[in-house]
Amino acid sequence: MTVTFEKRVHFYDTDEMGVVHHANYIRWFEIGRVEFLRAIGITLKDLMSDGILFPLTEVNAKFIHSSDFDDVLEIKTTATELTKVKMAFDYEISRKSDGKILVTGHSQNVFTKAETGKISRLPEKYYSKLEKVSAEKN
Amino acid sequence: MTVTFEKRVHFYDTDEMGVVHHANYIRWFEIGRVEFLRAIGITLKDLMSDGILFPLTEVNAKFIHSSDFDDVLEIKTTATELTKVKMAFDYEISRKSDGKILVTGHSQNVFTKAETGKISRLPEKYYSKLEKVSAEKN
Amino acid sequence: MTVTFEKRVHFYDTDEMGVVHHANYIRWFEIGRVEFLRAIGITLKDLMSDGILFPLTEVNAKFIHSSDFDDVLEIKTTATELTKVKMAFDYEISRKSDGKILVTGHSQNVFTKAETGKISRLPEKYYSKLEKVSAEKN
Amino acid sequence: MTVTFEKRVHFYDTDEMGVVHHANYIRWFEIGRVEFLRAIGITLKDLMSDGILFPLTEVNAKFIHSSDFDDVLEIKTTATELTKVKMAFDYEISRKSDGKILVTGHSQNVFTKAETGKISRLPEKYYSKLEKVSAEKN
Repeated sequence: MTVTFEKRVHFYDTDEMGVVHHANYIRWFEIGRVEFLRAIGITLKDLMSDGILFPLTEVNAKFIHSSDFDDVLEIKTTATELTKVKMAFDYEISRKSDGKILVTGHSQNVFTKAETGKISRLPEKYYSKLEKVSAEKN
Repeated sequence: MTVTFEKRVHFYDTDEMGVVHHANYIRWFEIGRVEFLRAIGITLKDLMSDGILFPLTEVNAKFIHSSDFDDVLEIKTTATELTKVKMAFDYEISRKSDGKILVTGHSQNVFTKAETGKISRLPEKYYSKLEKVSAEKN
Repeated sequence: MTVTFEKRVHFYDTDEMGVVHHANYIRWFEIGRVEFLRAIGITLKDLMSDGILFPLTEVNAKFIHSSDFDDVLEIKTTATELTKVKMAFDYEISRKSDGKILVTGHSQNVFTKAETGKISRLPEKYYSKLEKVSAEKN
Repeated sequence: MTVTFEKRVHFYDTDEMGVVHHANYIRWFEIGRVEFLRAIGITLKDLMSDGILFPLTEVNAKFIHSSDFDDVLEIKTTATELTKVKMAFDYEISRKSDGKILVTGHSQNVFTKAETGKISRLPEKYYSKLEKVSAEKN
């Protein structure tokens, strides 16, 4: 399952090299996984109000082509691992106008209890949604 | 009382016009008031652990000269009003190397209870410190 | 003439007070004026390739209500002054779900030559478009 | 050769999980390599005025412990590869107060000509400085 989110690049996203500053793509990976979760019926708001946090443990990115303000990007997010304690996603960010792949990446995050900061197993009501997606893949 | 904080501009602070993006100065005003409070013995950490928040209600800025990455800036912060329910500050950001004033500004914020989001009077232990500064001015 | 742009708030826009960090609204004012110009047929890309920059000289904002990630905002931008050397805009940012006005603001910017950094009169091909909007107002 | 840069975390660096937003560390890796280069006598300003850009091609990070505003961080940067066409660095970001390693990472970037965007060999006057560091390692 892949979820696509369209995002326009804004002027403030650029830097003095005349292109989007690379750290922004790392932020946009976050948009990708948030929209992935929303697509399967999970919102960060719900998780947080149940005292569940989702800190990133790992991220990597390859920067292939640059983009510029006014570009419309497509952030494609695919889950590669969804368990009760962690999630992993692949990302591909491309430019809508020419289809060029600009950035690819991967991230992992765990679930923790807001109260203790300790890793915590995801409650069934959320996990059942992740499980359904995992099942579809196979 | 004026508190000065030195800050180097980083590459990621710039935009495609080849200068610091203006919204960063608004962030750096925040550094200014945080350091002002630290200088009189108040940290945001303490306020937050006492359930006190300090949302901004107003900000304005005049952008006089641009700056660029590697510039070292001086953020000068002066309190213009310190009461039990609000604080107001003036800011002047200049470049250390040539003393040029780059940005001036002003902000106001209130104190609120984290729990209710309602405006709240600052506890005496904090207010006494603000009061001392206000007294010095006169 | 008022141009409206819809923007979803992302998780990375929030801060430890549990709401959108105020400096982001200043960035979003930029989205507002860029979209205003786009709506009348002017893109920053065109301006820049003609060697014209548009540095901000002044901004102010009043923060009325906070917003949170996942909120969809409406950025409403109205031109209040459009001349050959400067533009001024009013902004109103509200939350789409409940119509609450969150932030209002105003900005001014000038046109400069990229090469010299000096204030410069906008070429006729651009100014004619601004003029048309100004005329409509009266 | 390892270059260390101290950086205080600001309030605007945090997010609603109550810690520094992870994408900021990617920005701070940039501070690390800029300061590494400055330590060996190369500034981005000089590179840019010679028409040389330095786009990132790859970054990865492991997030081990979180940090919070007011923390003072130490960004330690080590060059792992310095050639005429690319640079690679390892990063370790720790908290000064308790020495805890918070984030480790790695990045690669190439040198390109600003004019063409094509990969370009670094001029001797810069490369000789990189070479000296590489030699020291062995």
